Amino acid sequence: MLLPTREAMVFLKILPMNGGNGKSSYANNSLLQKKMILEVRPFLEVSIKDAFSSGIPSCVKLADLGCSSGPNALSAISEIIHTIHGMSKRMNCKSPEFQVFLNDLPGNDFNNIFSLLPDFNEKLTKEEDDTLGHCFITGVPGSFYSRIFPSRSLDFVHSSCSVHWLSQAPAGLEKNKGHIYIANGSPPTVIQAYTNQFQRDFSLFLGLRSEEIKLAGRMVITIIGRSMEDPSGGECCDLWELLAESLTDMLAEGLIEEADLNSFNIPIYYPSEGEVRAVVQEEGSFNLDKIESFEANWDPFDDSDKYREAQNVANYVRSITEPTLKSHFGGAVIGNLFGRYADHLAKHLLMEKGKYFFMVISLTKK
Amino acid sequence: MLLPTREAMVFLKILPMNGGNGKSSYANNSLLQKKMILEVRPFLEVSIKDAFSSGIPSCVKLADLGCSSGPNALSAISEIIHTIHGMSKRMNCKSPEFQVFLNDLPGNDFNNIFSLLPDFNEKLTKEEDDTLGHCFITGVPGSFYSRIFPSRSLDFVHSSCSVHWLSQAPAGLEKNKGHIYIANGSPPTVIQAYTNQFQRDFSLFLGLRSEEIKLAGRMVITIIGRSMEDPSGGECCDLWELLAESLTDMLAEGLIEEADLNSFNIPIYYPSEGEVRAVVQEEGSFNLDKIESFEANWDPFDDSDKYREAQNVANYVRSITEPTLKSHFGGAVIGNLFGRYADHLAKHLLMEKGKYFFMVISLTKK
Repeated sequence: MLLPTREAMVFLKILPMNGGNGKSSYANNSLLQKKMILEVRPFLEVSIKDAFSSGIPSCVKLADLGCSSGPNALSAISEIIHTIHGMSKRMNCKSPEFQVFLNDLPGNDFNNIFSLLPDFNEKLTKEEDDTLGHCFITGVPGSFYSRIFPSRSLDFVHSSCSVHWLSQAPAGLEKNKGHIYIANGSPPTVIQAYTNQFQRDFSLFLGLRSEEIKLAGRMVITIIGRSMEDPSGGECCDLWELLAESLTDMLAEGLIEEADLNSFNIPIYYPSEGEVRAVVQEEGSFNLDKIESFEANWDPFDDSDKYREAQNVANYVRSITEPTLKSHFGGAVIGNLFGRYADHLAKHLLMEKGKYFFMVISLTKK
Repeated sequence: MLLPTREAMVFLKILPMNGGNGKSSYANNSLLQKKMILEVRPFLEVSIKDAFSSGIPSCVKLADLGCSSGPNALSAISEIIHTIHGMSKRMNCKSPEFQVFLNDLPGNDFNNIFSLLPDFNEKLTKEEDDTLGHCFITGVPGSFYSRIFPSRSLDFVHSSCSVHWLSQAPAGLEKNKGHIYIANGSPPTVIQAYTNQFQRDFSLFLGLRSEEIKLAGRMVITIIGRSMEDPSGGECCDLWELLAESLTDMLAEGLIEEADLNSFNIPIYYPSEGEVRAVVQEEGSFNLDKIESFEANWDPFDDSDKYREAQNVANYVRSITEPTLKSHFGGAVIGNLFGRYADHLAKHLLMEKGKYFFMVISLTKK
């Protein structure tokens, strides 16, 4: 059974590498991420101030995990540097140096991020004054489900919209026929397979980071989750179920193979706050300082026209899934699939608003 | 006057990014570099053993400056890791972790290096035993004529075939008409402009690295230089003068503009051992532990046929200069130019063997 791995999904979410600069490209659909980064800013600022209240090291080592390659890759970093530099000025200390590690999978378009650095540095110099210490940006190719940094080397870790990606789609999804994620009415084995995979992966993630982060170092993670306890009840299930319905329509018309649909599952899991808390507590390396949640429309443009709204959402989902869908179902079906998906989305959005549920958590290394 | 900068030259030496995978591509012409790395291996090994004889840190921080993107980018790193791991075993110590910083200009094809990492890691695991510590590879985009690492953060720095590239072609080359580097009979102002630029750049390079390398940290650099004192006498001058003659032929035939030829100068300098020693001493941050030299044929294939030999050399020079020449003279002339160049080279090689003079130096941070 061919299950798409997180590697494949994330590798391919950067469409410019894969020929896309159009409506569905990741860079053009990064508005959702951008809005989320703005939303998280106050939380991030408080966490940074708390993390460095007792002192700022001479070189602050920051990591951004799952940085991707679009214009948002550097915006959280810019926020973090700005806050720490402000603190050093208020403390009448010399600004620290900053060593920034931008991580994503080896297939990420690091060349593209690196091409943004001259502008980034110029902007940083303009926004801060000339007391700002050197800022050294590096790229770290590798899965965050493996060790990617030396032991006890990081002061602050940030990750935005990445850790709900699993290391792979769970095994044991044979009974998930006709669906591509947990759906309303999914059998318990399917739900269990997904929750187990999340628990294993998130626990692994925390264990690995606990080796890499210095004592009392901080980690701020934003993930998409769900507000309700039932894993089959969230609005994010709807997002994927509508895509599954579009695929099912195409199966009925003989445009895709049944075996292909049955073997396709999205390697994502949207946990509840309770599940996140439970894994952090059980894994035991971090104190969970704070958890906050907020919602954001599926359509970051908040278009008042339901059809344009549906098209915006379809474009976004296409931007993060097209290459995997292409490699699984073949390239010929994609245009047709996302046309149908936009129709299904429009019908759904006429009945109810689609919303993501975000959680942002701050963790301190024990 | 448009002078090609080192940035432009090095940015563009990786032809696969620029559409080339043919005979003149950098990757296909990296044999010279590979042979040189093999030649330098014993020197490198001795320097490493000396550097870590009194102890190995728990995480060894290595940098390779001007790593490029071809298959050689990781081979020196592999040597260094192998030697240090061997030392740790002989000392009955736990293997250190390794954090490796691969540096080149932001335009370098880091994606390509990163795509080689799975194979690199697999090979490393096979060649070493399972006691080898984690090895974390990162990419550092930036000019080594600026600060690229935090203060006192590096244990060992390696650079192969990069530091003879100047930060830019010198100013004041108005009298270098008809030449593109120092030539036999160049006026003293031209020689002075090149030597001054080298002294400034190499001194700057040492000063910057002295801030980044830990006390008693080591740096091993291989550069192309010259064996004789006279800067206008080396064989490397011939290499560029033959290219200048090819351009002059084309000027005579009206195929290029006189102003373009007069304003084109290669941002490289081939220093003598005495010049290298003088800059190191004057800059003052490093002890020069050792300097060795060796020669290598212009044609790394050592072809016995002079015409094939000339073609190999032309291919190599084309691989490192084509994009700059293209942007300066226009793309249409390149094929013609390198055809003529191969002819000039063949005539030259029939009379004498063309050889590079390499110097490898080991420096310790005072």
